[in-house]
Amino acid sequence: MQQVNDIMQQAAEAFKKYRKISGKGKANFLRAIAEEIEGLGMELIQTAMQETNLPEGRLLGERGRTIFQLKTFADLLEEGSWVEARIDSANHQRQPIPKVDLRKMLVPIGTVAVFGASNFPFAYSTAGGDTASALAAGCPVVVKGHPAHARTSAMVAGAILKAAERTNMPKGVFAHLDSGDGFEIGKALVMHPETKAVGFTGSFAGGKALFDMANQRKEPIPVFSEMGSVNPVVLMPEKMAQDAENIAMSYASSITLGVGQFCTNPGLIIGIENENLEKFMDILSDEIEKIAPATMLNEGIYQNFEGKKTLALAQDKVITESVSKVEKTAQIQGMPTIASVSADVFLKNPTLHQEVFGPFSLVVKCEDLAQLREVLGHLEGQLTATLMATESELQANEAIVDILRNVSGRLNFNNVPTGVEVCFAMQHGGPFPASTDGRFTSVGPDAIKRFVRPASYQSFPDSLLPDELKEANPLNIWRMVDNECKK
Amino acid sequence: MQQVNDIMQQAAEAFKKYRKISGKGKANFLRAIAEEIEGLGMELIQTAMQETNLPEGRLLGERGRTIFQLKTFADLLEEGSWVEARIDSANHQRQPIPKVDLRKMLVPIGTVAVFGASNFPFAYSTAGGDTASALAAGCPVVVKGHPAHARTSAMVAGAILKAAERTNMPKGVFAHLDSGDGFEIGKALVMHPETKAVGFTGSFAGGKALFDMANQRKEPIPVFSEMGSVNPVVLMPEKMAQDAENIAMSYASSITLGVGQFCTNPGLIIGIENENLEKFMDILSDEIEKIAPATMLNEGIYQNFEGKKTLALAQDKVITESVSKVEKTAQIQGMPTIASVSADVFLKNPTLHQEVFGPFSLVVKCEDLAQLREVLGHLEGQLTATLMATESELQANEAIVDILRNVSGRLNFNNVPTGVEVCFAMQHGGPFPASTDGRFTSVGPDAIKRFVRPASYQSFPDSLLPDELKEANPLNIWRMVDNECKK
Repeated sequence: MQQVNDIMQQAAEAFKKYRKISGKGKANFLRAIAEEIEGLGMELIQTAMQETNLPEGRLLGERGRTIFQLKTFADLLEEGSWVEARIDSANHQRQPIPKVDLRKMLVPIGTVAVFGASNFPFAYSTAGGDTASALAAGCPVVVKGHPAHARTSAMVAGAILKAAERTNMPKGVFAHLDSGDGFEIGKALVMHPETKAVGFTGSFAGGKALFDMANQRKEPIPVFSEMGSVNPVVLMPEKMAQDAENIAMSYASSITLGVGQFCTNPGLIIGIENENLEKFMDILSDEIEKIAPATMLNEGIYQNFEGKKTLALAQDKVITESVSKVEKTAQIQGMPTIASVSADVFLKNPTLHQEVFGPFSLVVKCEDLAQLREVLGHLEGQLTATLMATESELQANEAIVDILRNVSGRLNFNNVPTGVEVCFAMQHGGPFPASTDGRFTSVGPDAIKRFVRPASYQSFPDSLLPDELKEANPLNIWRMVDNECKK
Repeated sequence: MQQVNDIMQQAAEAFKKYRKISGKGKANFLRAIAEEIEGLGMELIQTAMQETNLPEGRLLGERGRTIFQLKTFADLLEEGSWVEARIDSANHQRQPIPKVDLRKMLVPIGTVAVFGASNFPFAYSTAGGDTASALAAGCPVVVKGHPAHARTSAMVAGAILKAAERTNMPKGVFAHLDSGDGFEIGKALVMHPETKAVGFTGSFAGGKALFDMANQRKEPIPVFSEMGSVNPVVLMPEKMAQDAENIAMSYASSITLGVGQFCTNPGLIIGIENENLEKFMDILSDEIEKIAPATMLNEGIYQNFEGKKTLALAQDKVITESVSKVEKTAQIQGMPTIASVSADVFLKNPTLHQEVFGPFSLVVKCEDLAQLREVLGHLEGQLTATLMATESELQANEAIVDILRNVSGRLNFNNVPTGVEVCFAMQHGGPFPASTDGRFTSVGPDAIKRFVRPASYQSFPDSLLPDELKEANPLNIWRMVDNECKK
């Protein structure tokens, strides 16, 4: 595939220069991208509205998030300590052999291929978290535009290219591939020897396929696929006795937020069968019935939602608790739907453990806490897990906290899982199959760590070391110097 | 395989308790392991001598290193900041939506399978760097004993089990599998669903096979295989004009240190063809001729050395420059050998790019710096790369520094690559195929990062957070609090 080959050769050439550009230089580039995206104004928002069916308010918010992310990485680069500089000084007197001078820091790994998400045309797509963190790390980026928002993607790519030119970045530091021949282009990109890592947000099938390809290369490369999850919510009985109504109200909103098209959507709610759970179900059902169906991202997402929902509801002894009673006004609108099932049936039926991407949630009714723990023991890796509990229940149920902690990236207390803060303490990425590598986050400044590796310099002359490792600490960054953290 | 299954179930049970043991508790355990190993006294050293043919002095030194590593991780745990705690405080006033309290730290991933190295029966085997770092991280460890030092491995395992009992660690936190049915046991260990990561030190074939197995699991897991490299050394002309003699002397020692059985052995020396390189070759040859062949680790390692050396020497136009003239006194002694080849031939002959594990080094003669850069452009990932140069040559040859930086984990200046310091600034692990994951080190305190993942807590009550994340910072560790690094 000549197009991919040409772009990758240019990226490889760009890497030779780009990896040596200072933190400040890369920060300027990221800030320029933010400005150029803002400069696209309402035309970008309207294009995205047409392509994704997402409402204006949501897209304005998402553009804001995208710009915030770019600026967050610019801040990180300007501060500079993220490179984890470690210095171990020489000791020529040490016996039996002298100690050499060793210095280590994180360096970029090379060109990163990014596959954007359909549900976040800005924040997790062309100039989204993967692109921003890879460029921040010092890696060239090649984006394969998502076919579901091809024009939006091309406009954003244009903004990045303009920013690169304006800030004198090396030619080839960013490239955008049309989404025309989707699968073949994607494969060529992942298999190209100059590709050194892959970022992906989407379905399990897509993310796992990229992961498998990358591991079959002569030189295997890391693939960071964020593939979603059912985000289990555990309703503890004491909490339910106190607060079933409010919990039901907030979950009705969370389940249907953005037509349920969030990877942190609460798709599985697990409680103890009693009158409080009944009350919760009644209120949740009433609320869901009032919520208008809204247009989903595209025909494919809608068909997938309908198919998986139908499959879940068709399982033996799954009860449809409520479906929105508001009538559809357009073709591909997703009907908010709640179903329930006994824990016994759930345990025997792996189909019910799978994500139904859209406004759907399954309530699992357990006989007691022992059965609830059993259900939790069957969960696979999750982006988030949520515990609705009183503090005394939290304290008394260490085993439940432990199971949820162990299967999830983010453990949430008395809250809804939707809403993913862009900050240092965010972990967005859970044990497999929530993501292909739960040791990294795709949201927040730490996302930069996906695209770097540590590199040591032994006995190097000070003047030729990178600034981050020079004795005088000219960048004034935090470093580990002879086992002490200091500035 | 029932034996593996039983052990893994016990490890899974142990993990539930072990992951919650404090840093101090785990540090006690590691220090107790060090004590128990010391307690084995000279019997351990003598057993290892019989099994590995390594001399007493070397084994005493290696035992010291092993104990130092255990204590280094104990120190790391007691200090506590390694968990990378990040705290983002709540802001209930934030518009348009309030900010939640989020806290993140590194948590252990689960049971780690360790495959020890034949060439380091202590430091990279049963109680070596992989085991020490995994136990430090909070992960149970199952070691498959190396068949080449089965009794040594069993003795060390006994010491670990005694230490575990003495410090009240949960049953199953450590287990040792006999090396009897090697391949099948190894495979069962890697494929077991309770295994969450693999540490391996050895050949490319072995390490890559484990990596491939692990990626074919239903839940793929990380494999940290350290597979060795040729550790290229570049001899720059100005430096050679000044110092060819000393360089030759120090490389004669480095090439034959430990009968060349180090993964950082300098197997490839690249210079510009001129009288200084001739002088270097003459002195190196003279020195090599004087060095007595010594017994290699075992028959397999010896046969492999002989086979690969013969293969390299049999390539067209490879010239044998010198072979030790000291006579063999035993069967499986490796004869120190130096060969040379023109860059032209080297470039066309990938066989010559491969590691010959043992006291062998190939000198590549380039016509000029342009050809030298071409040779470097063909190198695969390396644990180390070394530049012998004057400071002005270093300054004037940025392209060469860049290539070496990009293919290696540790870049070395006017030094020999053998000698791997156990410290924070050490990177031992290079781009593939030097290791399967060059984003991590297997030596030094940072090796602990291979066996953890970040985990967030959202809106958790302070009293129920791990101590590392409590508001008052009771462990007095370094943390990132609202974007600031503080204690």
